[in-house]
Amino acid sequence: MSAESPFVSDVPAAAALDAWREARAAAGCPARVDAIRVPVGAAVGRVTAEPVWARRSSPAFDSAGMDGIAVRAADTVGAAETTPVLLAVGEFEVVDTGDPLPAGYDAVVMREQVHRTGDGAAELRAAVPPYQHVRSIGEDISATELLLPEGHRLRPVDVAACAAAGATELVVRRPPLVVIVPTGDEIRPIGTEPAPGEILDTNSLMLAAQAREVGCDARVTEIVVDDPDAISAALRAAAVDADLVILVAGSSAGRDDYTARVVAGAGTLAVHGVAVRPGHPVVLGVVAGTPATPVLGAPGYPVSAALTFDIFAAPLLADLEGAAPRERPSATARLARKLPSAIGMDDWVRVRLGRVQGEVVATPLPRGAGVLTSLVRADGLLVVPAGLEGHHAGEQVRVELLRGLGEIGHTIVAIGSHDLVLDLAASALRATDPLVTLASSNVGSLGGLVALRDGLCHIAGSHLLDPATGEYTLPYVDKLLGAGPDVAVVRLVHRDQGLIVAPGNPLGLSGVEDLTRAGLRYVNRQRGAGTRALLDHELARRGIDFAEVSGYSREEHTHLGVAAAVAAGRADTGMGILAAARAFGLDFVPVAREPYDLVLRTSTVADDLLAPLWALLERPEFRASVEALGGYSCAETGRRIR
Amino acid sequence: MSAESPFVSDVPAAAALDAWREARAAAGCPARVDAIRVPVGAAVGRVTAEPVWARRSSPAFDSAGMDGIAVRAADTVGAAETTPVLLAVGEFEVVDTGDPLPAGYDAVVMREQVHRTGDGAAELRAAVPPYQHVRSIGEDISATELLLPEGHRLRPVDVAACAAAGATELVVRRPPLVVIVPTGDEIRPIGTEPAPGEILDTNSLMLAAQAREVGCDARVTEIVVDDPDAISAALRAAAVDADLVILVAGSSAGRDDYTARVVAGAGTLAVHGVAVRPGHPVVLGVVAGTPATPVLGAPGYPVSAALTFDIFAAPLLADLEGAAPRERPSATARLARKLPSAIGMDDWVRVRLGRVQGEVVATPLPRGAGVLTSLVRADGLLVVPAGLEGHHAGEQVRVELLRGLGEIGHTIVAIGSHDLVLDLAASALRATDPLVTLASSNVGSLGGLVALRDGLCHIAGSHLLDPATGEYTLPYVDKLLGAGPDVAVVRLVHRDQGLIVAPGNPLGLSGVEDLTRAGLRYVNRQRGAGTRALLDHELARRGIDFAEVSGYSREEHTHLGVAAAVAAGRADTGMGILAAARAFGLDFVPVAREPYDLVLRTSTVADDLLAPLWALLERPEFRASVEALGGYSCAETGRRIR
Repeated sequence: MSAESPFVSDVPAAAALDAWREARAAAGCPARVDAIRVPVGAAVGRVTAEPVWARRSSPAFDSAGMDGIAVRAADTVGAAETTPVLLAVGEFEVVDTGDPLPAGYDAVVMREQVHRTGDGAAELRAAVPPYQHVRSIGEDISATELLLPEGHRLRPVDVAACAAAGATELVVRRPPLVVIVPTGDEIRPIGTEPAPGEILDTNSLMLAAQAREVGCDARVTEIVVDDPDAISAALRAAAVDADLVILVAGSSAGRDDYTARVVAGAGTLAVHGVAVRPGHPVVLGVVAGTPATPVLGAPGYPVSAALTFDIFAAPLLADLEGAAPRERPSATARLARKLPSAIGMDDWVRVRLGRVQGEVVATPLPRGAGVLTSLVRADGLLVVPAGLEGHHAGEQVRVELLRGLGEIGHTIVAIGSHDLVLDLAASALRATDPLVTLASSNVGSLGGLVALRDGLCHIAGSHLLDPATGEYTLPYVDKLLGAGPDVAVVRLVHRDQGLIVAPGNPLGLSGVEDLTRAGLRYVNRQRGAGTRALLDHELARRGIDFAEVSGYSREEHTHLGVAAAVAAGRADTGMGILAAARAFGLDFVPVAREPYDLVLRTSTVADDLLAPLWALLERPEFRASVEALGGYSCAETGRRIR
Repeated sequence: MSAESPFVSDVPAAAALDAWREARAAAGCPARVDAIRVPVGAAVGRVTAEPVWARRSSPAFDSAGMDGIAVRAADTVGAAETTPVLLAVGEFEVVDTGDPLPAGYDAVVMREQVHRTGDGAAELRAAVPPYQHVRSIGEDISATELLLPEGHRLRPVDVAACAAAGATELVVRRPPLVVIVPTGDEIRPIGTEPAPGEILDTNSLMLAAQAREVGCDARVTEIVVDDPDAISAALRAAAVDADLVILVAGSSAGRDDYTARVVAGAGTLAVHGVAVRPGHPVVLGVVAGTPATPVLGAPGYPVSAALTFDIFAAPLLADLEGAAPRERPSATARLARKLPSAIGMDDWVRVRLGRVQGEVVATPLPRGAGVLTSLVRADGLLVVPAGLEGHHAGEQVRVELLRGLGEIGHTIVAIGSHDLVLDLAASALRATDPLVTLASSNVGSLGGLVALRDGLCHIAGSHLLDPATGEYTLPYVDKLLGAGPDVAVVRLVHRDQGLIVAPGNPLGLSGVEDLTRAGLRYVNRQRGAGTRALLDHELARRGIDFAEVSGYSREEHTHLGVAAAVAAGRADTGMGILAAARAFGLDFVPVAREPYDLVLRTSTVADDLLAPLWALLERPEFRASVEALGGYSCAETGRRIR
């Protein structure tokens, strides 16, 4: 708002990394962290700081490669099925795999091919060439050979090979130290109960864990108030030990966003703002000193903070160790829906993945920088590059994988209406078999049926009431998917729908007929949601025109969204399930009991993938846990109604 | 050899895992390790032992989604480019992203769209809808929703989301404890200098690191001698605390292989021998007790031990945590050469991978169970299933990746003759740029040219002497790859070839003419090796028939293999480079100085992939380090000779 705080710029990510690298070099930041000498056993996960040359050969002696007898090959010449050779005691020696080859012998015969006679002699029915089944000195490692280059991150097999080659210690890079400095007047430490308007410092927890995950040490300082001098002092103090300082929040250009200014004052401001979404207001710079220290100003939105670490911190930290950055595997997937994207920004979209009809399908998750659960639930990341306006539905896209494709193949993809019972089922399935995942995306009942039609999901959760017939689900299935036998419908639960109201029901609402009351602020669900269809039906039954309901056109996309609007006082009431009212400590005026069904392709009913779900629906303890939620009945749970 | 030690069986891996699972269940082994309660910050990497439901909503209040001003949407009705609306001081409030929405306001206008007048009023040129740029309570997480199911391995974003949802502690599985019991009279602790016939305990180091890598705690006991009572006592003692005991070595059926017998005596022997290579003599069983404890008898060959952990221990340990086992990404690759495999055994083949002419090419590494460096150098694992007799050269195969495809794309694939200078270059390249790998496979000069012809490598190292012309490399290139302009040749070094002899040259050899001496045992290189061609040339020059050289038909595949044979006393001499003689402390009788060349496709000379190699060859410090090896000259290094 003020002239002195410039707007953040849009530097492409690659250019930003280059500018930061140049600024670091110019300011004299070390290219690598120091090398240290550690025992081989402590070197796993670290990066070699010098090549490892073999000091000894392994094996260090010729040895038996099989259980059997050691012989002189020359003694076996002429042995054949019809002319066996007998070796007397003293002309051979019994050896086990790994035993040193006894002096004077030059071959091993497998014991399966030796016939021992009564007097202890060994009968051979085939001649053996010299060095048969002899494991040579140096077969694995020859002294002086290059075992590992510099810049290699050590795995268990590597340290074992180094030890076998005579190393007892290895020279590796010490782990880089990341110091995280949380800032903000409204930030409170985890463990405290935040007052209204306060925010828990979850970003520092996450960033420290991300740093440790890539092999670094991490430290989090005290929370610093929004004061440029205090932030500057904290930054300089952190830079003394750190190989990278991360200042959290304050990286934008609001009134309390001091990061860019503070970094400029402490050394070099290389970049303020990158063409990456989420993550746009990033600060990259250097704190002057001996040596100088790189600093990253991370945005406070949690998705931005997490991605900023991946995009900017992780490559720097790998570079400091002299190793290649960790790489995520990728796969091709079919995009479940249209994905618009702003030109000029790399757009990091979180997606759920599932294998439907033999093809990996990617469903975009909410894109807000504040929606951390979009990262929690993501199976993959899709980067829409700055030059693209987005992707069409059905397009093949490349996705970085956050879960393995095998696990993704064990995922039941549910798209449609949201119900808490699906969450409960997801957790119960996983508890029974860690490989089974039930992933549900909430797009409303109608959206689910469309997704099923388009081959984007295994099951569609639906509770659509047909106003003409008063019947649920089946009329819509007929309409959208055809009345043929290739669609099956399984009842999940019956549940109570009603008006969610403020605690104590201060307006004394008693039912749908009260929604026309003057001044009442209703909040509706989106078009295609079963709950909206239910409202329409209940209004029509009473002869009420929807235009009489103030707020009818205000839409939320979930039961919980409606409840949140009521809880925040933005609305007086909205239709939803009892569990959503309970989530926000609200009251509930029942309106109707409705079925909630699972719609699927008949061909998949007997699929192995879905078997655990059907078994779960039969379990009495699962049904009990559903009914314990309140507002649910399992009387018809698991019944196939078509 | 003796009747009481049965041969090991060939149980398919899946059946072995099933049999072990049943034996564990029957003996009363716990299905899961205990749940513990830990602070959120300490929960990263652990597996949830119960679902995580959100305790609080996040954000916990409506807040500004942009920097700008908070307004009442109703006040902006009618605002347009030609009819701006002026909001006086007090009719709006300046807000930054994340600030709680001030009471009484219901929308935010981005500051870019606000014109401030001289008297502090805000001029709007567009009406705004209610809730514009307002981040709603619960946008990320709604109280009571399922945040994570049971059985989820916690990542940094997960714990941050849990903390945001009000969790300060999480209930997770404690890390399983793996206790490793090394056995064997010949085994010595790492750090000691092994006497002849003794072996360092590198397997315990590796297995403990593998256990820690999959999130477990690990402990290694003292080394136990080959005595069934001692092993039995150690096993029972280890089982008291352990969730899994690994007995290392003694799992076969040799005279000192007591593992199967000891396990049977201590509880249940479920499996002895699996249809997996390497790894065949595996023991799977249970130690009786309260509770009973699973035990794995791992073979002593290091590749077998490592793969046994992956195939049998890792799934059990994941199961104990209630999580899906970690999964390796996979890719399709073209097999560089024929790969025969025994029917009836899953064959785990280690392969190097490189991207050549746009295609991923897999080159099998040595297959011996004792060649740990084959795992160290592997970029992937190719499993030839029990039902297959192998694969043809050029066949498309599925490979489990041990390195990322991105890194593999930065790998210079060298196939051909081996030279230490390539090792030196590999390490120097990596030190300069951690992303660059030079991977060389040693198949001899001729094999390298064939590999280049077949599109299996980027460069072929060659030092083939044409006896007809006395010229190196070029005549063979013409013959195999054509005399056209599409093949380039770059000189790497000149190097001394000579006779490798025992220290002090006890037989007083002075040159090739002495190789016909009676009783002398020569060791040769394989057909197609440049060093063999050199010998043939030197013999022919002197009019010596190769039949006069005793041992001419004995073949080793590397310089170091020849040196090892001399060092072990299996041969008196063989031709090779000075560095190989030095590796084993041997002496050297120079015979010839020869060039060693790099052959490549002309189209790849200017490829980005190879640029770092050409730059390296020009560096004086690299040339100095090559000449310091002894027996090398860099006078023509880097010169393009065709």
